[in-house]
Amino acid sequence: TWPSSSSCLKCFSFYIVPCVYKEIPDSPKHLHPHLFAQVWSEQDFQYLRQKLSPTYPAAHYFRSGVIGSGLCVFSKHPIQEFTQHVYTLNGYPYMIHHGDWFCGKAVGLLVLHLGGLVLNAYVTHLHAEYSRQKDIYLTHRVAQAWELAQFIHHTSKKADVVLLCGDLNLHPKDLGCRLLKEWTGLHDAYLETRDFKGSEEGCTMVPENCYVNQRELEPFPFGIRIDYVLYKAVSGFYISCKTLRTTTGRDPHSGTPLSDHEALMATLCVRHSPPQHIPSPSHGPAERSPLTSILKEAWTELDLGVAQARWWATFAGYVIGLGLLLLALLCALAAGGGVREVAILLWTPSVGLLLGAGAVYLFHMQEAKGLSRARAELQHVLGRAREAQDLGPESQPALPLGQQEGDGTEEQ
Amino acid sequence: TWPSSSSCLKCFSFYIVPCVYKEIPDSPKHLHPHLFAQVWSEQDFQYLRQKLSPTYPAAHYFRSGVIGSGLCVFSKHPIQEFTQHVYTLNGYPYMIHHGDWFCGKAVGLLVLHLGGLVLNAYVTHLHAEYSRQKDIYLTHRVAQAWELAQFIHHTSKKADVVLLCGDLNLHPKDLGCRLLKEWTGLHDAYLETRDFKGSEEGCTMVPENCYVNQRELEPFPFGIRIDYVLYKAVSGFYISCKTLRTTTGRDPHSGTPLSDHEALMATLCVRHSPPQHIPSPSHGPAERSPLTSILKEAWTELDLGVAQARWWATFAGYVIGLGLLLLALLCALAAGGGVREVAILLWTPSVGLLLGAGAVYLFHMQEAKGLSRARAELQHVLGRAREAQDLGPESQPALPLGQQEGDGTEEQ
Repeated sequence: TWPSSSSCLKCFSFYIVPCVYKEIPDSPKHLHPHLFAQVWSEQDFQYLRQKLSPTYPAAHYFRSGVIGSGLCVFSKHPIQEFTQHVYTLNGYPYMIHHGDWFCGKAVGLLVLHLGGLVLNAYVTHLHAEYSRQKDIYLTHRVAQAWELAQFIHHTSKKADVVLLCGDLNLHPKDLGCRLLKEWTGLHDAYLETRDFKGSEEGCTMVPENCYVNQRELEPFPFGIRIDYVLYKAVSGFYISCKTLRTTTGRDPHSGTPLSDHEALMATLCVRHSPPQHIPSPSHGPAERSPLTSILKEAWTELDLGVAQARWWATFAGYVIGLGLLLLALLCALAAGGGVREVAILLWTPSVGLLLGAGAVYLFHMQEAKGLSRARAELQHVLGRAREAQDLGPESQPALPLGQQEGDGTEEQ
Repeated sequence: TWPSSSSCLKCFSFYIVPCVYKEIPDSPKHLHPHLFAQVWSEQDFQYLRQKLSPTYPAAHYFRSGVIGSGLCVFSKHPIQEFTQHVYTLNGYPYMIHHGDWFCGKAVGLLVLHLGGLVLNAYVTHLHAEYSRQKDIYLTHRVAQAWELAQFIHHTSKKADVVLLCGDLNLHPKDLGCRLLKEWTGLHDAYLETRDFKGSEEGCTMVPENCYVNQRELEPFPFGIRIDYVLYKAVSGFYISCKTLRTTTGRDPHSGTPLSDHEALMATLCVRHSPPQHIPSPSHGPAERSPLTSILKEAWTELDLGVAQARWWATFAGYVIGLGLLLLALLCALAAGGGVREVAILLWTPSVGLLLGAGAVYLFHMQEAKGLSRARAELQHVLGRAREAQDLGPESQPALPLGQQEGDGTEEQ
């Protein structure tokens, strides 16, 4: 009763430019129906919008944080609905030289209707890595990957096709990437397509690119793959990636690259699927074992993060106590005379210390709450899997689980 | 072909306690399948959880902010899934005496399966009002109401029944309340039920309650209604409120109230509905005119908020410049001798001024971005309504719109 024809019900191609320096290509060969880009400022977006409006009449810039997320999208088709979710955790405000905190990294959702299909397109940018050896943002990126996966899971329940594009700042085998793919059931266009052309191993940050920090890429001779096109079809549709292209370090016309990352161009094809091909709508693929172990791995990572955040909050609490003592001592010295000038001179740093420690205390308390929240969500999923296991594999085959969860008191 | 029987497919009752002082009633008559409560701390939640676990085996506390949202839920039925969304804007960190900013006000989502029905239950708490005459949080509460409405809209597309319980800190006719109800299509249990017993006019903050600030309620002799039970059924179901009860200022046993707000108890009944009774699944009720005018009203409010946030950011920018000048002058005076001690003494306040102004600048920049985001979403909805109007009323009858939108350059 299902059409077994392999012809495309709907084909759509798009173009992702992870970071644009006002030089988006406007030659006709680059005209894709959707263009997900990342810009430095809202002014850059307005400039591009004006330039691209004849071909991409619909556009949106996702505002967040102090500077702005930089996420924007241009589309030939009208955008039916959009919304966004700003990640709870996104680095530290005192890491001013990294600046991620000020951007307010987020995930943007666009609902598009393409020839009767409901397409939920997500665009995102996760926290950068900076140092792979000593990655202080690992826990935040895992929490962001989980929030992203949960946002997709809860907002895409009625979508026919789900598409996620963006700079995840995660290598394909990284915990965050595996967690995202396993929990949402999204497929990786690079791994799925039969027609790939572009940089070696699909890398989107390549040493040939003149904007890339060469030292960072030393352990990776071909570069790294951190920008993704992920997709899935639900409710009786089947999606495949017909072609995937990346740029390769420099623009053929100008010689300079469009961005520090390579752009991705994908063409996806959606077909009707016989019922047995429909993936499980609520939890992605039927095989659960890898998900369970990934969830546990993520839980452990978040648990470490909670402990560390609490340690920092406690440390800041002690510094506040010390700062108050110091200030009292300085006031006494200033009143007593003798070393009066020195005492007054030290007021500024001690008040600064007090305020700084207060801010650090508040920030890490908030961080601990945010990480606990993600940990509780993970634990609940693991708990439900355990219940399914207890009921026997035949009653709920979608959630087998081999091991018992350790910290059973947290969530049941 | 649809069963026209009026018997309940599923009945469920619940109990909302807006703010609990560790004294949740545990007498059998109060045992409702679900209990949405708000507590001061996670320790209070753990205490209640232990006490209630025999009757409510499933429980969850929504963690957010520095102090915690206080939102929690106890359920007789297992919780299938949960997640939360923390509001982008929630007051000002420097309003320490109000404290809302530190709570991290949020909306929590619980997915429950009740006898084949998928129930999405939302629990929330919006920013408090403090002064109705000079309400500095009005814009934030409107933005929160919109974020809440959007979160429900995007996460409930596959739910059979949607339930929202919580302390909205909004009077029934307030802009935020109207916006929420019109955009989501949720119905107010107090207005819908035929069987109400409790305080006059369904008020949940009554002068009889000894924890309530009597001066605040002076203009409202019966009190105010700011806690709500809102619901809707989608996809072929019909929901009605069989009974609604409130407490009336004091607990009959102890004489002291459970909370500063009155508790609400509701029993809802879900039936199959013939197709013509199904409300429009994407945008709530079919009649759009009130929605359009409410959206415009909210847009205007948010636009004022954006302007005010930008004014504060600019003001803070000038103060930063002034602070830098002052600091340079003090350094020069300290080096030059003469009034050296005074100059050094003034260092602390001038550095404090600089840091404070910097924080205010960053905060209001973020506020402007957050408000602009909500404004852009509202504008898009209004724009789509205008397009529907241009296409003629018969093609898209769900979104009529009488007027043209003013600021057409922002979003199209």
